[in-house]
Amino acid sequence: MTWWALLVEYDGGPFIGWQRQHTGLSVQSVLETAAGKLGCGPATIAAAGRTDAGVHAAGQVAMVDLPNRFTGEQVRDALNFHVRPHPVVVLRAAPAPHRWHPRFSATGRAYRYTILNRRSRPALQAGRVWHLPHALDTAAMAEGARHLLGYHDFTSFRAAACQASSPLRTLDRLDILSAGDEIVVLAEARSFLHHQVRNMVGTLALIGAGRWRPGDVIEALAARNRAAAGPTAPAEGLCLTAVTYADDPWSRS
Amino acid sequence: MTWWALLVEYDGGPFIGWQRQHTGLSVQSVLETAAGKLGCGPATIAAAGRTDAGVHAAGQVAMVDLPNRFTGEQVRDALNFHVRPHPVVVLRAAPAPHRWHPRFSATGRAYRYTILNRRSRPALQAGRVWHLPHALDTAAMAEGARHLLGYHDFTSFRAAACQASSPLRTLDRLDILSAGDEIVVLAEARSFLHHQVRNMVGTLALIGAGRWRPGDVIEALAARNRAAAGPTAPAEGLCLTAVTYADDPWSRS
Repeated sequence: MTWWALLVEYDGGPFIGWQRQHTGLSVQSVLETAAGKLGCGPATIAAAGRTDAGVHAAGQVAMVDLPNRFTGEQVRDALNFHVRPHPVVVLRAAPAPHRWHPRFSATGRAYRYTILNRRSRPALQAGRVWHLPHALDTAAMAEGARHLLGYHDFTSFRAAACQASSPLRTLDRLDILSAGDEIVVLAEARSFLHHQVRNMVGTLALIGAGRWRPGDVIEALAARNRAAAGPTAPAEGLCLTAVTYADDPWSRS
Repeated sequence: MTWWALLVEYDGGPFIGWQRQHTGLSVQSVLETAAGKLGCGPATIAAAGRTDAGVHAAGQVAMVDLPNRFTGEQVRDALNFHVRPHPVVVLRAAPAPHRWHPRFSATGRAYRYTILNRRSRPALQAGRVWHLPHALDTAAMAEGARHLLGYHDFTSFRAAACQASSPLRTLDRLDILSAGDEIVVLAEARSFLHHQVRNMVGTLALIGAGRWRPGDVIEALAARNRAAAGPTAPAEGLCLTAVTYADDPWSRS
């Protein structure tokens, strides 16, 4: 058997999230069922991040154990054949580096959050964006975002259900880009707390709407209380775009 | 009554096309039904271009006659309320300039065609792209595209059902852009023949795949025979992005 690293894209819309649960269809269960058809019985697939219900991925990374007889191209194509018709595809498959794990070896995660900032609801972008009809001040949002950069106790931006042992994280990037009627938030860190990106975006949206001043973020952080920050932005605007590794599985393939 | 110019976005997927027909749901019929709820009985809506089944629009332009009592914001919001739940939205509504018509006054149309050029089928982009799994040579495609620029008899790139009186058109832009695993074809002209963009893209795809040389486009044009050019690319990759006017309805609003 060989451990394979997989680069995975999915539309989170129809799923209860990455993680297998008894309450509905998950990305993990769809991939595990597909892998079970190539391997020796039931497969278990680990991922870099357990995305929530409705959250998309353009660059999720996962790992699965399969018989030795396949090439990377065969693993990718066979999994893609068996995951049909679900909106999940394997973009790359490569032998996992020695002692590599998609979650524990990851040195960085990148997320993109897209806001559609116009009066009319989305038609072409439905299910991919958070629709906010009132004009947002992106300069104020960017100023608020700068206060979140760096090493902080992110308790105020952490879901109650978050299982991380520490609320301390270093946020490396939180950029606000504007393109036409879209506002894109790009977030990068070694790791994020549960709902951290969506809670930061929900707070930045309050700043953009003029309901918070950018500096209010400093007090929200200091409060170490979820109730002190803004609401959780909807899942459908969020996409896990990349996971980075010191020992990159794709560099060898 | 006032003539209103409308800027319209839609996902072409669920529709039989722009034009009202008895065979199914059209964008026109959805908008006309919505307009009928604001006006004085049945409404008729004309458009800049009658997009085919499955073709999307980010910037279709249409015109409708409605009672005088509304503002542009009210027309937009009321139509958007009544078109629900269909994936059609009005982005702008402005009083139509004097003697203006969305189709006959148009001085330019811009289309975007998106090819997803990677082995794995689309998950996030499903329904928005033409999936071509074999690597395409975009430099060769761009060289082939240059032969199509300018004033030509486009009979070889025209659908049999095309109702235009002349096959002569001037193609102002046919650019090939590459971004990650997407190849985007941007086409601009005063007007296009029926299926012209999709037939040009289908031909460029043959060049990208190495089955045609870029110069073969010259012979295809000269043949003035639909069978001499490449196949029609699928509708789902095409999007009408903009229509331009000398007397721009939006410049006044």
